[in-house]
Amino acid sequence: MKRTAPPLMRWQPVPFTKVSIEDAFWRPRLETLNEVTIKACLAQCEATGRISNFAKAGGRMEGPFEGIYFNDSDVYKVLEGVAYLLMSNRDSELEAETDRIIDFIASAQEPDGYLCTYFTLAAPDKKWTDMEKHEMYNGGHLIEAAVAYYEATGKRKLLDAACRLADHYDRVFGPGKRHWVEGHEEIELALVKLYRVTHEERYWKLALWLLEERGHGYGQGEIWEKEEWGPAYCQDDVPVRDIERVTGHAVRAMYLYTAMADVVHASGDPAYVEALHRVWAHTVERNMYVTGGIGPSRHNEGFTRDYDLPNETAYCETCAAIAMAFWNHRMNLLFGDARYADVVEREMYNGALAGISLSGDKFFYVNPLASKGDHHRVEWFGTSCCPTNLVRYLPSIGQYAYARTGDGLAVNQFLNGEAEFAIGDGLNVKLSQKTNYPWDGRIELTVHPERAANFAVRLRVPGWCRGYRLEVCGAPISGAEALTDRGYLVLDRRWSPGDSVVLELDMPVEAVRARAEVEADRGRIAIQRGPIVYCVEQADNPDLTYDAFALSAREPLIVRHRPELLGGVTVLMGRAEDGKPCLLVPYYAWDNREKGFMQVWIREAEDRNLYVY
Amino acid sequence: MKRTAPPLMRWQPVPFTKVSIEDAFWRPRLETLNEVTIKACLAQCEATGRISNFAKAGGRMEGPFEGIYFNDSDVYKVLEGVAYLLMSNRDSELEAETDRIIDFIASAQEPDGYLCTYFTLAAPDKKWTDMEKHEMYNGGHLIEAAVAYYEATGKRKLLDAACRLADHYDRVFGPGKRHWVEGHEEIELALVKLYRVTHEERYWKLALWLLEERGHGYGQGEIWEKEEWGPAYCQDDVPVRDIERVTGHAVRAMYLYTAMADVVHASGDPAYVEALHRVWAHTVERNMYVTGGIGPSRHNEGFTRDYDLPNETAYCETCAAIAMAFWNHRMNLLFGDARYADVVEREMYNGALAGISLSGDKFFYVNPLASKGDHHRVEWFGTSCCPTNLVRYLPSIGQYAYARTGDGLAVNQFLNGEAEFAIGDGLNVKLSQKTNYPWDGRIELTVHPERAANFAVRLRVPGWCRGYRLEVCGAPISGAEALTDRGYLVLDRRWSPGDSVVLELDMPVEAVRARAEVEADRGRIAIQRGPIVYCVEQADNPDLTYDAFALSAREPLIVRHRPELLGGVTVLMGRAEDGKPCLLVPYYAWDNREKGFMQVWIREAEDRNLYVY
Repeated sequence: MKRTAPPLMRWQPVPFTKVSIEDAFWRPRLETLNEVTIKACLAQCEATGRISNFAKAGGRMEGPFEGIYFNDSDVYKVLEGVAYLLMSNRDSELEAETDRIIDFIASAQEPDGYLCTYFTLAAPDKKWTDMEKHEMYNGGHLIEAAVAYYEATGKRKLLDAACRLADHYDRVFGPGKRHWVEGHEEIELALVKLYRVTHEERYWKLALWLLEERGHGYGQGEIWEKEEWGPAYCQDDVPVRDIERVTGHAVRAMYLYTAMADVVHASGDPAYVEALHRVWAHTVERNMYVTGGIGPSRHNEGFTRDYDLPNETAYCETCAAIAMAFWNHRMNLLFGDARYADVVEREMYNGALAGISLSGDKFFYVNPLASKGDHHRVEWFGTSCCPTNLVRYLPSIGQYAYARTGDGLAVNQFLNGEAEFAIGDGLNVKLSQKTNYPWDGRIELTVHPERAANFAVRLRVPGWCRGYRLEVCGAPISGAEALTDRGYLVLDRRWSPGDSVVLELDMPVEAVRARAEVEADRGRIAIQRGPIVYCVEQADNPDLTYDAFALSAREPLIVRHRPELLGGVTVLMGRAEDGKPCLLVPYYAWDNREKGFMQVWIREAEDRNLYVY
Repeated sequence: MKRTAPPLMRWQPVPFTKVSIEDAFWRPRLETLNEVTIKACLAQCEATGRISNFAKAGGRMEGPFEGIYFNDSDVYKVLEGVAYLLMSNRDSELEAETDRIIDFIASAQEPDGYLCTYFTLAAPDKKWTDMEKHEMYNGGHLIEAAVAYYEATGKRKLLDAACRLADHYDRVFGPGKRHWVEGHEEIELALVKLYRVTHEERYWKLALWLLEERGHGYGQGEIWEKEEWGPAYCQDDVPVRDIERVTGHAVRAMYLYTAMADVVHASGDPAYVEALHRVWAHTVERNMYVTGGIGPSRHNEGFTRDYDLPNETAYCETCAAIAMAFWNHRMNLLFGDARYADVVEREMYNGALAGISLSGDKFFYVNPLASKGDHHRVEWFGTSCCPTNLVRYLPSIGQYAYARTGDGLAVNQFLNGEAEFAIGDGLNVKLSQKTNYPWDGRIELTVHPERAANFAVRLRVPGWCRGYRLEVCGAPISGAEALTDRGYLVLDRRWSPGDSVVLELDMPVEAVRARAEVEADRGRIAIQRGPIVYCVEQADNPDLTYDAFALSAREPLIVRHRPELLGGVTVLMGRAEDGKPCLLVPYYAWDNREKGFMQVWIREAEDRNLYVY
């Protein structure tokens, strides 16, 4: 399926620090994150030796390395989340605690800049011998944390450590030096971040070089030798510019494409553009669940064959859903197309959000779309990448709301709150959104440029929406500006301070069917309403049985907001085939009550009415 | 496909005289009907000799029979419409004019009761020799007009003539007398009406006997002998109780099933119940257009083979759509199932309504679903059954709004206005509906029983609706009463005067596809919103071309009410595949402006986004 990639638009992000979230949906989640999740994850890092590994490597404490070789990354991801938190709320106690951990980290850095406590403590002679051992993966997360903490506090200690580490990589690896194919991508996108904050071009070049190393047979290590995995497992089977298909470990693939999108935002390399375009279509059109989940297989934590999307055994790692948001956010900026923001939305309200309990202290690593009742949230994992990824993903959610487009701005996500940023030639614009999204499709936007000016406001019309209404300054719009362009309504006009836009998205209940190729979903439907994918849980439906339950796609469902249920959810209620009532709740909220079965793809009952259409 | 018919519920109709319509959609149409359509049709009946045929047959005027043998029926149908009009507005001038026509009609009745001006004037020796010559069809319409006029005015002259005619039939035909298979059904349902007003059982029995005559080889006449038509053309191929499939002339078939439903409402004959159930499924599931139109073929004005639903050559006689409303109204009463009221709604807002111009003086006999620009409304037809059918159908539209259910009442159609009728054991209940239907799905219903009492209010949730909200007396409902039962929400409770119900139906834009078996619609979509089927007309889309135009099923459409357009319509606007804007208007409103192409089933453009679901 040959398609030509559209031209690059190169929109600019609006950082979450410019976006205040006063939203009934997101605000309580962010508070729980601050009050519960971050503390819980720091405590787990402490209790499991993840933090003391740094102290040990730095000679501040006695004892052997504890845990697994990629554990450093969890500490870095929590610190990144802490930094995001400090950006909006400079909690001095938390900052002091973080500085203490940063001291340990800095102490663990070897004189040449090397930093990876597993190798320093447990296998100093094995450094850089197995590309699967996450040395640069750990380093990448250090860099992301360091950039965030520097931006939050202005403190350079962690950033300096990160630069020394990156410089170390740059001395050892690169053109004319050693080859390296990092088994778990992450360093590439991190180096682009480091370049952006330091303006040191060598970091950007090293990121590009690391991307270009892939697919030429340089990969070495256990993974590469195992026949059932091989180079495709870590996207080392073809040069990145030749990528046609998504393969291997899902999180690794997403981090790779994220880095490619970052690099091409600057380079504009058409081969990268085409590769990204191809692999996006291959991922989203053939290998993504309705929840936004990706990577069906536990075996490789990743992809198998096209349309292989089993429900009960769906792996759908939380990190992979988060990484899909990362990648699609970059794709949106690159191509200025709302379809990518649609995927971000799908992750925000489904795939990624399902990973954390409403209480904020229990997590899913694996997110199946059906369960007989034996899959439950836990407080921590041996490999605990998912909780720590949520810690840094959630507080930065505001970054998905807006983009700067060159000729104005784009509204990508609908969140109650305010934003303020400069567009185009420096014109400062305040925006405020009033909405009950995701439960209601009405969005009131007020545009406050610092002075009246001409610019374009783009409003995303979500892919699930078929009908909408639009008013600008109280007048209904139905000319050409009321038509979508790459998924956006484009209001290109003179904006005066206080001008209002009301967008009303129809948000009906929808029964969706998978493509016929998806064997697991044949004869099944999934229920969506707006951005929310629903599921049936035993807790609400004690009379239903997992195997016998069926629902007609034409069954009308009552829509009711239940503020007291599951943190406030809109539930759907209808009649199952057997006449018994059934109640559906948002998928993201499942397994927050007593144990029981859950289904997203529901067996489709015969319609009451079989018209010819 | 063997199905067992559900039990009979035997609901009772609520006549339109009990239902006042103060509705922005229907009120102007009824006024146009009164002011324009009825006058125009009377004038046409006069000008074409239809009225003077009676005067001639009665010896009041000289001259030969003019026109065709079924022309009497048009006069009767206009009189029936006039009677409905007089029921709500006793216009003495119109009544005097009608009395004058009734005098002519009565004068044309022969001493033995026979009445059919064609035979009296042109072929007195050919009476009852060809069953296709519409003698009883004319008589049936006389009876319907007579019953209506008697109920409107209390005047018996026409009713007496109708009884004399029915008595004449009863003397000539029946068990032990002559056989008769009336080529065009109508007499059967008319005799049931006559029975209901006179309580003379012999009329009901004659209706039943006429039904039972079919399918035994008694049919005689030109139609029966022509190989390409044969007995199936007039539903004489099988005994009615053995009917499996809809066949032949569409209006005839619908009138037959209407009569069968009338008869079984009293008799409860399970063989009839099963036959009706089978033939309804066969009609609606395989032989109905999305507009509610039926009968694809001009050749037989009727049915061909399953799923043969061509668009440009669709015949879809207006009378057949009206007759579908008649039949489905009866089916709803019989079985207490909302699916039949769904079909009534489909005819009300699409198939039947398309038959009349907004100005009220131009008509479609044939209602294609696509036109290259050569099909237009005209003022009259040689065979002018459709205009005259509209004249009696439209003023009685209020009868579809409610039903009496035994344990309470059912709200079947959503019309702004008031109703008052007795339920159950005689409790008087006033209802008032406030709604902007069909443009908006919010319905406010106030229930005013004469005193507080327990009864059930059933609210139809239309088949197109997937999500709804329900409040009773200000409280949201989500228990079992919020689930549909045979398509109804059942509010079985104690009702006090002034109790309110708010039903909010999601009314999203929907792209529908025909079943794969419908060859004409392959690769095409139709756009619906609520009960309204949309079309693209050249008048709004001068830049589009009939053959090249395509629209994606995922294209978001702006929804905008345009009070100044086509009598006030909600239009939909989106972007065609070629990037040009396209505007859709309700199908019922087409060909009310300059000539041009029209399409309901639009070629489907490739989706922007091809997810796996």
